[in-house]
Amino acid sequence: MSIHNAAQQLRQAIRSGQHKGNTSGLAGGHVQCNLMILPEDWAMEFMGFCHQNPKPCPLIAMSEPGSPLLPALGSDLDVRTDVPSYRVFENGEQVAAVDNLMDHWRDDLVVFAIGCSFSFEEALLAAGLEIRNIAEGKNVPMYQTDIACAGSGRLHGNMVVSMRPFAAADAIRAIQISSRFPSVHGAPVHLGNPQLIGIDDIALPDYGDAVTVGQDELPLFWGCGVTPQSIVQSSRPPFCISHGPGDMLVTDLLNSQLAVL
Amino acid sequence: MSIHNAAQQLRQAIRSGQHKGNTSGLAGGHVQCNLMILPEDWAMEFMGFCHQNPKPCPLIAMSEPGSPLLPALGSDLDVRTDVPSYRVFENGEQVAAVDNLMDHWRDDLVVFAIGCSFSFEEALLAAGLEIRNIAEGKNVPMYQTDIACAGSGRLHGNMVVSMRPFAAADAIRAIQISSRFPSVHGAPVHLGNPQLIGIDDIALPDYGDAVTVGQDELPLFWGCGVTPQSIVQSSRPPFCISHGPGDMLVTDLLNSQLAVL
Repeated sequence: MSIHNAAQQLRQAIRSGQHKGNTSGLAGGHVQCNLMILPEDWAMEFMGFCHQNPKPCPLIAMSEPGSPLLPALGSDLDVRTDVPSYRVFENGEQVAAVDNLMDHWRDDLVVFAIGCSFSFEEALLAAGLEIRNIAEGKNVPMYQTDIACAGSGRLHGNMVVSMRPFAAADAIRAIQISSRFPSVHGAPVHLGNPQLIGIDDIALPDYGDAVTVGQDELPLFWGCGVTPQSIVQSSRPPFCISHGPGDMLVTDLLNSQLAVL
Repeated sequence: MSIHNAAQQLRQAIRSGQHKGNTSGLAGGHVQCNLMILPEDWAMEFMGFCHQNPKPCPLIAMSEPGSPLLPALGSDLDVRTDVPSYRVFENGEQVAAVDNLMDHWRDDLVVFAIGCSFSFEEALLAAGLEIRNIAEGKNVPMYQTDIACAGSGRLHGNMVVSMRPFAAADAIRAIQISSRFPSVHGAPVHLGNPQLIGIDDIALPDYGDAVTVGQDELPLFWGCGVTPQSIVQSSRPPFCISHGPGDMLVTDLLNSQLAVL
């Protein structure tokens, strides 16, 4: 098969083991997705969860039950092999970290591809804004909040947010730009005082790395695609699989296709 | 002449002296404008000023030199009689407060109608947000800032802003909604710490009234249509006229026509 675009090329490199690890900044312009894979028995509830919590869990695509393919995201795409690393959970506890799912795939699994902030970060950078975690060469800081997600069946829990600091004028611009991308988290869910959403210390993120927040800057908090992992950990389905942090599913979709305005 | 709409009706009541004072909340749905009237000799510079400072000075319409009519804003509209009160300035100093311009009109005057925050306030209210000054029955608080406007010829000076406080989630929504109305000040120019734009005490506005700012709220600052008055006062043209505060030019335009999205 001929290679049509940088996303397909990267997926082939991941599939063959040539590329390992973080996909941040690779296959520029292409949508990358968070992954959640659940047994069919839990799939409807998870779909309901995404529907009711579009800020942290914007659903981009889902598979047929038992199918590891997501043709809408790439004709050659196979979720079992095309992500650099995976985490396997049983009853909410991680039991394995693997680089493919050939030994873990089951014919009752449903794949959910969930939007990722890489897409709106690209739009913010294109607008000339500085994204602190990129400028400092770090992972974006992420925090558990006390913002309750809307429950769906057995799935419940609090939202995880990512944080990027901006000076006020840039914060306003960042709100405008990210609002155009509702399928990749959209506008922030909070800005300003972190304690109002249950974050005690902005210097101690629960996931990712701390970044510098200037004295004249405001922290902006976006719904984060790590939320589904947090939710399944607290809701403890017997079996599920996610991607490794930062090791995303790279798709043929273009970020620019996701802009609503 | 038959009366076609509430704006025309209100202008007739103002013209005949039946209505005096504030136009806030009247002729709902219709665009109200700030007024600046300058000699033709200063008109091009003022037009350039509006063009370069669209946040505080969004130009809605201007007249032919010497004409008090703005047919685009109302077929019957006469700027000399249709505003409840006016202020006349000479060399930047107020020399008269009058309720019509019949004795002050000159055949070299040019009228500028500038967008007013009443328009986006209506959209914020329609979205279910509380506007503090309205809830508290006060004029919106306005402040001189140290944000320098772009100069145009002899016209220069700092921006005046209006302030409305919101909780974070409402602040994000208010930014989204007001962004749709670039011809009536658009998105805020600042949010958060007032001192960063030269406001020492948020409880002491330079114009209008102080309003309550809750501990968990952020102040949002929008470019304000009082800026032109402040600019002509600092730039001291030999002659100019503005509306009295809150006594706006009510037009046939609909606020909904101004939304860009």
